[in-house]
Amino acid sequence: MTASTADDRMAATGGRHLLSIADLGAEGIEEVMRLTDSFVEVSSRAIPKVPALRGKTVVSLFFEDSTRTRLSFETAARRLSADVMTFSASSSSLNKGESLRDTVQTVEAMGIDAVVVRHSVSGVPWQVARWLHGPSVINGGDGWHEHPTQALLDCYTIRQERRARGAGSGSGSGLEGLRIAIVGDVRHSRVARSDVIAFSALGAHVTLVAPPTLLPPSLAGWPVDVTHDLESVLPKVDVVYLLRLQKERMIEALLPSLREYTATFGLTRQRAGLLPPEALIMHPGPVNRGVELAAEVADLPSSVITKQVANGVAIRMAVLYLLLGSGVELAAA
Amino acid sequence: MTASTADDRMAATGGRHLLSIADLGAEGIEEVMRLTDSFVEVSSRAIPKVPALRGKTVVSLFFEDSTRTRLSFETAARRLSADVMTFSASSSSLNKGESLRDTVQTVEAMGIDAVVVRHSVSGVPWQVARWLHGPSVINGGDGWHEHPTQALLDCYTIRQERRARGAGSGSGSGLEGLRIAIVGDVRHSRVARSDVIAFSALGAHVTLVAPPTLLPPSLAGWPVDVTHDLESVLPKVDVVYLLRLQKERMIEALLPSLREYTATFGLTRQRAGLLPPEALIMHPGPVNRGVELAAEVADLPSSVITKQVANGVAIRMAVLYLLLGSGVELAAA
Amino acid sequence: MTASTADDRMAATGGRHLLSIADLGAEGIEEVMRLTDSFVEVSSRAIPKVPALRGKTVVSLFFEDSTRTRLSFETAARRLSADVMTFSASSSSLNKGESLRDTVQTVEAMGIDAVVVRHSVSGVPWQVARWLHGPSVINGGDGWHEHPTQALLDCYTIRQERRARGAGSGSGSGLEGLRIAIVGDVRHSRVARSDVIAFSALGAHVTLVAPPTLLPPSLAGWPVDVTHDLESVLPKVDVVYLLRLQKERMIEALLPSLREYTATFGLTRQRAGLLPPEALIMHPGPVNRGVELAAEVADLPSSVITKQVANGVAIRMAVLYLLLGSGVELAAA
Repeated sequence: MTASTADDRMAATGGRHLLSIADLGAEGIEEVMRLTDSFVEVSSRAIPKVPALRGKTVVSLFFEDSTRTRLSFETAARRLSADVMTFSASSSSLNKGESLRDTVQTVEAMGIDAVVVRHSVSGVPWQVARWLHGPSVINGGDGWHEHPTQALLDCYTIRQERRARGAGSGSGSGLEGLRIAIVGDVRHSRVARSDVIAFSALGAHVTLVAPPTLLPPSLAGWPVDVTHDLESVLPKVDVVYLLRLQKERMIEALLPSLREYTATFGLTRQRAGLLPPEALIMHPGPVNRGVELAAEVADLPSSVITKQVANGVAIRMAVLYLLLGSGVELAAA
Repeated sequence: MTASTADDRMAATGGRHLLSIADLGAEGIEEVMRLTDSFVEVSSRAIPKVPALRGKTVVSLFFEDSTRTRLSFETAARRLSADVMTFSASSSSLNKGESLRDTVQTVEAMGIDAVVVRHSVSGVPWQVARWLHGPSVINGGDGWHEHPTQALLDCYTIRQERRARGAGSGSGSGLEGLRIAIVGDVRHSRVARSDVIAFSALGAHVTLVAPPTLLPPSLAGWPVDVTHDLESVLPKVDVVYLLRLQKERMIEALLPSLREYTATFGLTRQRAGLLPPEALIMHPGPVNRGVELAAEVADLPSSVITKQVANGVAIRMAVLYLLLGSGVELAAA
Repeated sequence: MTASTADDRMAATGGRHLLSIADLGAEGIEEVMRLTDSFVEVSSRAIPKVPALRGKTVVSLFFEDSTRTRLSFETAARRLSADVMTFSASSSSLNKGESLRDTVQTVEAMGIDAVVVRHSVSGVPWQVARWLHGPSVINGGDGWHEHPTQALLDCYTIRQERRARGAGSGSGSGLEGLRIAIVGDVRHSRVARSDVIAFSALGAHVTLVAPPTLLPPSLAGWPVDVTHDLESVLPKVDVVYLLRLQKERMIEALLPSLREYTATFGLTRQRAGLLPPEALIMHPGPVNRGVELAAEVADLPSSVITKQVANGVAIRMAVLYLLLGSGVELAAA
């Protein structure tokens, strides 16, 4: 198996890291997606395990709670036969004054191979990558900035689901010419930032749908359209991607009330009826049922939210394999 | 190795779960105990590991602290070569509003094979089982309601210890006709509820010994006798099972004082002298030494409390094997 | 591979534990160091894993936060193919009244093979060892008392770095005749206590450099010199070992201010210039940069702080192997 393009793109960005989805470019994203097909197959086996990363150690350095992302990376690493260690801020000695830098250097000195970093401050994974000489760094989400593996799994899920519905050709990214609406709190969303970059790179056309208070102060350089009118957009999209609304936004007075938000930007049962029959409903999770989308909409066949979670494991296997693998064949472990 | 009866009983209760000890019935409990004999043997090997669940992933979803139960399940899973992931409430994103349902669906989407659920609210494991289509659910203790693997290990320990003392025949459950006293806070005890069901199903006669404030409001349907007089019961029992007293009960004014509780219901050295020579002393742990039983009583040869812990691992291996195993032989891993 | 001396020394101290560095003596320390050479080699392999402890389970019982020590032991155990379980005080049922004794007996009953104990109270690992009949106990740091694996990795790092610099012969401990200054809060430092014992046992001459408030009340029986004048000592040492300064000491009024401490006892760039060219700079970590030593001094080639961390994994592999191994060859896992 060769994965030279994505490998080369990652290599071009400091060698061995996945920090921003922009570093991969269209070719890199497509290469990761092709490799992911193999890992989706591995994951469907009775014993979903390959020996590709045997003897490698992956550490999740999570300074921000995230069950789903942490478990997804750790499941991916274990299916590749890597060892996994969890380091969460609450259990760390950071609270006795250990600096981030010392923590990172400790990890390096112990001979760890990859570090998945999640932090509430934008840019931390880049800082970590500058301090490390050996291990690979994967951005597991930094502040409002980037979440590249989420963008990869979103692209992959769209490609996979369009093919399953008979749309999209067998070649290419599968996203060329698609119309995708991203709805909600774009301003505070790393998922939105990474998705806009990835969807656009693959040839999709993105429309942001949000109240003015939940848009970034400037959209200069964003290859997107913007509207505040969800209902006019829905009949014309292939994908509607609803962002999670952090309830803290209410306290910050960026929204008058949850009820009013849902009345204007929620995907109600009625609004879901405006979508074309083949359109997909997506959400990065965890869903606030009854806020971003109605509970019964989350359970429609066009909702692929749990598919996104399932593909997350295979995407992360592909990323870990590209960064750490050494050409071992994907035979059973 | 066949385990058709227990398997069938579990299958009858929604296919793949262990939620209540009542679902197993006498035959199911006996089948689990027979299978446990094999895993006791495995646990005594120099390398106590078999490959039976290689490639399977077990998640412990613990919303309530319990070192001993969590470590016991995780040790059991590892001895069967399964991968283990720990999800504890404090480290989860539940505190940023992720619902239990989303957590459970995330777990399912990641391709996990079994979930051990512990929760302070009765009935949660049933709710989790309704949401899941693939993974097996094991009740690791829900509220005051049930704790089926504790009941299994208690039955197994009684059978094993009676045989070791030359009592009990080689066939049958080993509990037929035994007289078992369960002493203490029955009202708030899931252990008591599951034990009463299991002991009775296997033919033992159960007497509850407790102050009125620590008995359930109604005992309708419980196949038990009730008394408040511990000393009159002790000379006539084969097993005395002391329940843990939560110190919070004092605050709730259900007891006048710990000292008074111990004076009336504690197994003091003197009261232990009233027991027949072959009687067993049991406790689910962790023991409040000096409250439910005197420290020196906990260390008597008739006290089998650490045997219960040891058997807990083998019982949980048997349960995981029945729910997830696919007929792989119990050869060394 | 034989390791009879260290093995015998450990055996002499109750059979199977590593509680104090004093139990090993010079011969035991040297034996551990010779064995560590093998594990440094294992750690440099593409797949740094050997099957030596397959089927063994190591539990880290940490009642005090310490990312670096816990990860180091767990990495060591995994490289030996042991299973690892983590038990931290915050996630334990100790907060619902489970006593330390019950926790320890639970661990024993589950068939665990080794327990690494870290506790803020001096002597706890000895107490744990008295309660256990089967598992080995390793002191991972107790109060201000002892931290034997830190002393071992410090000795090993000095030997290794001196050889790499062409100093020290190929035989012996490599520390004979060395002059080592230990600087800082000796009073509250388990690292200092274990290092003084180990360095002296191997023939080094130790000088303590500290303000009077940070020295123990009595130094009777310590084979050391004491001074308050760092600058007069630096030109004459082979190793300067800086201790971590707990910022809590300020609150306890043992020091007037951090700035004043650094002005007198900090290893500034200028003071580092007083050291002989081959002298080593060491610190147990995590470093308070700008307090115990200047940031640029921590990054000098003579600073071997990250080497200490790296060697920590190999040293702990050697200790676990000596305590739990059964003569299995160090072939690839």
